[in-house]
Amino acid sequence: MTQPMTISAIHDAYRRGELTPHQLVHRCLQQAQADERHVWISLLSSEQLQSYLDGLEGHSPDDLPLFGIPFAIKDNIDLAGLPTTAACPDFAYQPPASAFVVQQLIAAGAIPLGKTNLDQFATGLVGVRSPYGACQNSIDPDYISGGSSSGSAVAVATSQVCFSLGTDTAGSGRVPAAFNNILGLKGTKGRISCSGVVPACKSLDCVTIFAQTAADLAAVWPIAAQFDPQDPFAREAQTAKPIPAQFRFGVPAQDQLKFFGDEAAEVLFWQSVRTLEALGGKAITVDLEPFLQAARLLYEGPWVAERLAAIKDFFRADPGRCLPVIQTIVGGAESRSAVEAYEALYELQRLKRIADAELAKVDLIVTPTTGTIYKIQDVKVDPIQLNSNLGYYTNFMNLLDYSAIALPAGFRTGGDKQNLPFGITLFAPAFQDDVLLALGDQWQRQLALPLGAGHQPLPANTPVVVMPQADTIDVVVCGAHLSGLPLNWQLTERHAVLVQTTTTAACYRMYALAGGPPYRPGLIRDEQVGKAIEVEVWRVPAAEFGSFVAGIPAPLGIGKVQLADGSRVSGFICEPYGIAGAEEITALGGWRHYMRRKNA
Amino acid sequence: MTQPMTISAIHDAYRRGELTPHQLVHRCLQQAQADERHVWISLLSSEQLQSYLDGLEGHSPDDLPLFGIPFAIKDNIDLAGLPTTAACPDFAYQPPASAFVVQQLIAAGAIPLGKTNLDQFATGLVGVRSPYGACQNSIDPDYISGGSSSGSAVAVATSQVCFSLGTDTAGSGRVPAAFNNILGLKGTKGRISCSGVVPACKSLDCVTIFAQTAADLAAVWPIAAQFDPQDPFAREAQTAKPIPAQFRFGVPAQDQLKFFGDEAAEVLFWQSVRTLEALGGKAITVDLEPFLQAARLLYEGPWVAERLAAIKDFFRADPGRCLPVIQTIVGGAESRSAVEAYEALYELQRLKRIADAELAKVDLIVTPTTGTIYKIQDVKVDPIQLNSNLGYYTNFMNLLDYSAIALPAGFRTGGDKQNLPFGITLFAPAFQDDVLLALGDQWQRQLALPLGAGHQPLPANTPVVVMPQADTIDVVVCGAHLSGLPLNWQLTERHAVLVQTTTTAACYRMYALAGGPPYRPGLIRDEQVGKAIEVEVWRVPAAEFGSFVAGIPAPLGIGKVQLADGSRVSGFICEPYGIAGAEEITALGGWRHYMRRKNA
Repeated sequence: MTQPMTISAIHDAYRRGELTPHQLVHRCLQQAQADERHVWISLLSSEQLQSYLDGLEGHSPDDLPLFGIPFAIKDNIDLAGLPTTAACPDFAYQPPASAFVVQQLIAAGAIPLGKTNLDQFATGLVGVRSPYGACQNSIDPDYISGGSSSGSAVAVATSQVCFSLGTDTAGSGRVPAAFNNILGLKGTKGRISCSGVVPACKSLDCVTIFAQTAADLAAVWPIAAQFDPQDPFAREAQTAKPIPAQFRFGVPAQDQLKFFGDEAAEVLFWQSVRTLEALGGKAITVDLEPFLQAARLLYEGPWVAERLAAIKDFFRADPGRCLPVIQTIVGGAESRSAVEAYEALYELQRLKRIADAELAKVDLIVTPTTGTIYKIQDVKVDPIQLNSNLGYYTNFMNLLDYSAIALPAGFRTGGDKQNLPFGITLFAPAFQDDVLLALGDQWQRQLALPLGAGHQPLPANTPVVVMPQADTIDVVVCGAHLSGLPLNWQLTERHAVLVQTTTTAACYRMYALAGGPPYRPGLIRDEQVGKAIEVEVWRVPAAEFGSFVAGIPAPLGIGKVQLADGSRVSGFICEPYGIAGAEEITALGGWRHYMRRKNA
Repeated sequence: MTQPMTISAIHDAYRRGELTPHQLVHRCLQQAQADERHVWISLLSSEQLQSYLDGLEGHSPDDLPLFGIPFAIKDNIDLAGLPTTAACPDFAYQPPASAFVVQQLIAAGAIPLGKTNLDQFATGLVGVRSPYGACQNSIDPDYISGGSSSGSAVAVATSQVCFSLGTDTAGSGRVPAAFNNILGLKGTKGRISCSGVVPACKSLDCVTIFAQTAADLAAVWPIAAQFDPQDPFAREAQTAKPIPAQFRFGVPAQDQLKFFGDEAAEVLFWQSVRTLEALGGKAITVDLEPFLQAARLLYEGPWVAERLAAIKDFFRADPGRCLPVIQTIVGGAESRSAVEAYEALYELQRLKRIADAELAKVDLIVTPTTGTIYKIQDVKVDPIQLNSNLGYYTNFMNLLDYSAIALPAGFRTGGDKQNLPFGITLFAPAFQDDVLLALGDQWQRQLALPLGAGHQPLPANTPVVVMPQADTIDVVVCGAHLSGLPLNWQLTERHAVLVQTTTTAACYRMYALAGGPPYRPGLIRDEQVGKAIEVEVWRVPAAEFGSFVAGIPAPLGIGKVQLADGSRVSGFICEPYGIAGAEEITALGGWRHYMRRKNA
């Protein structure tokens, strides 16, 4: 398939009439039916797909942001018309409706193709723990795909769909992204509804998104992340805190980085640090120990009891219906006590305080997504320890309530894992999703890797993901608020910053008003005899600007001042009565000259 | 003691030279030593007190807000120099330092007197579960004091100290306030540090404050509620959301109110509803069921395992060192599983969503603090059920993360509990502490009950607790922003409200500016020939005012407009160039007249 599987490329093709949703979806269906990597557990029929295509009638990419975009759904998330198996055939049920998040995506025009393979009950990071077959890596079929969202990742990497839904409790939405050279967004916990999702650890679970580009993640995220009042763990959106262009990123101390002997991965990680520096970042060594301690709580601690709670009746009735490795893990939760659960909560709270303080030193932290990758055969021989190795950098994320994005970071050169992809994860406090998406987009453009398992580059007209900006208002000052003058503190105490020293357009007269100190000028627009007057432009947080304005005494106020470049910016104006009898000082060209003369 | 035990009265006496801290503290110590109600577990010696008094040297009420104010500490909170027993002699330890909160109070000038009796391990709401004796009610010694913070409440009610610290997991900081005609503030969870406090349920525990007046609670609260980075459950302060003068308060549906046969209490509750209405409140019936369901989770659910976790090693080594009732309760936690703990967390999260929505319908909810009160003898006969009855309205508060204040609400007339005090609790979302304190102060002044167990009224010069106000800016509008006119939405979308319809001072001229629609006037100050112009004053949230100002195009701006009453308020001004050639419409007296003429 030569069609790049990105939303903008598909929409361009639709708009040009080169492709229809019907054509694309059926091409995807054929490819999925022909898949031999154990990606799918079930697919919608042509007839079922038709009803979704019919829903697009009368619409276009202009009114539906995901118009005709095919996507895949991990098979622990409900899709009406197909059973939800959680990769356990005996557990399967027919959901009465699609999950809340799936409904949002369909309402935006996206077309579900089917349900993807996973580690049973989303318990695993390997992608081999499934009676539907070990999902194969999209680049080298001897290798694991990563899990638990194995099929969803490989479906995207092999362009069988444009994006997909996974879930992520301990790393399941990130590890398979790293192993298949795609992006995975593990957004802030509670932002994407978990209604209609088979829980793994209900207090930690996130629904995640895989795509080949940051632009596609950024397009899907706001649609997927609708607040769901029916999900008790749902959280309302919060505005992301912008990070500066010269951002600071944390890098774990050298002795806290583990690559499990994978030297080619280590090389790629340090290249990634250089790439982040090339994007304007400043690397700062951080202590990963509190994060790693929290990570160990997840599988060594009582949270595994949440996995048992999720399937308690089914499991206790006959554990033999689960895979042996799942029996071992989930069955181990039976002996966990409530005392242990609360003690672990206290320990987590203690560690979070320390980890948060470490994270607060920087704007985000970079780690490898995983230190290495394994062959399917090796994982079958040692299913617990190798799985555990893969969670070294991922297990703490939801316990500590951070947002994270997994990014492709190049292919190994040399070594026995030659050509296999490596990935990094950027993580930040909760609700920083939009910042991570924008930085992920910058990252992807900087690295310019081929997309997924194919050879296509990022399509040239892929929309840029905009970094969130602080809500600010620029204000032109011309008198006592200039840098170093008596009222400048009214700006700096509001965290305003000087952004420009310039002049007004050549159409203002300046007067020295009566009264003071503080002495103050009045700026009067006069296109006939006015001149250019020296001014400064200060950038004030919008929420602080109102109190600044309210504090200005008559005859001054804030209106619009025209600058030398012709723009009209909020700035000091003067009521006409104020200049009655005032000395005109236009000829001096600015207030500093007047004050110098006055003080001379 | 005739000295009213309130901070302002004591400070007045200090300032007038009628009393010294040394005199007051030793008078308190003598009274405490003579106490026969089982209030105290241990008291500081005169020598120990002297070192605190020495610390006041060179200070005064002017620089130390709690200068020379004696206070009591519940004996599950560490005070250097006395053992912490948690009312279990075998558990007692010598703390290496005072608890964080105690240190804050001492640093502000308060003088600790000693450690008070409590239900063992703060487990109980009765005040009789102590090997140090059943703490007696301050008004009728046959009755219970309430617990678990029994001694701290009675010490305040009997004016042995000015204020005291309690703790509150399920109601322990509120029930004893109700039973002793004093106030109890159970502030937002995490605001007062629990470092140096023996945990009951560590994820729920709050340190609380008892005092005879809301003014004293309001004085102690900001000092006690310092953020403690060493307490993993500590939370930073958040600004309280102001409530309007015509606030809405929730009243539980009639069939959800339980008084356990105490008809005199029921009468007082409905009188309390009338009192809240007299304060400007509007009663709205709310459904208490989700709150009550959450309450039942506390003792019927797995949270009791937190009590076991808190004293696990001590308890398991020899349960016989605890009182039989404590053995039963805490020992029952041994069989609780981690699965139960997580399932209860899910259920709580579900109920919180429903309860929050109910609470969001009003500004706060009022309930009885307890439906009734019992004799000590009756509780000894039926220790579990009667205790449970007392928690009916209190058990849900910390689980659901609300702020609450317990207020005295009169004395029973008639019935077998004649003259015993009744109390109400006002509760609101987390971080509404300052609102509850201000309302509590209004309540106390309205009801004018005698203080505590004595006969003194609220001292006349007790400082008023100020209700938090929204940060707003008033803006004078005279044109298209007037109610019903085309740009009024720019105010209403910012949640601005109309506060006054008036005129300017008689010194303005009005011009119809060129351009439009929207058509706009210019207001020009002219003391010679100006008139009074019709205007409206709108109140805009300060954080929204900046964007409003920034959106105003030239030649208009926001300066100061003088109103008929002489005040100068932020409002629309006009640059002089803007009225060149504009039609003067001053004679019409206002923009609406001009628009009417224009549209005629």
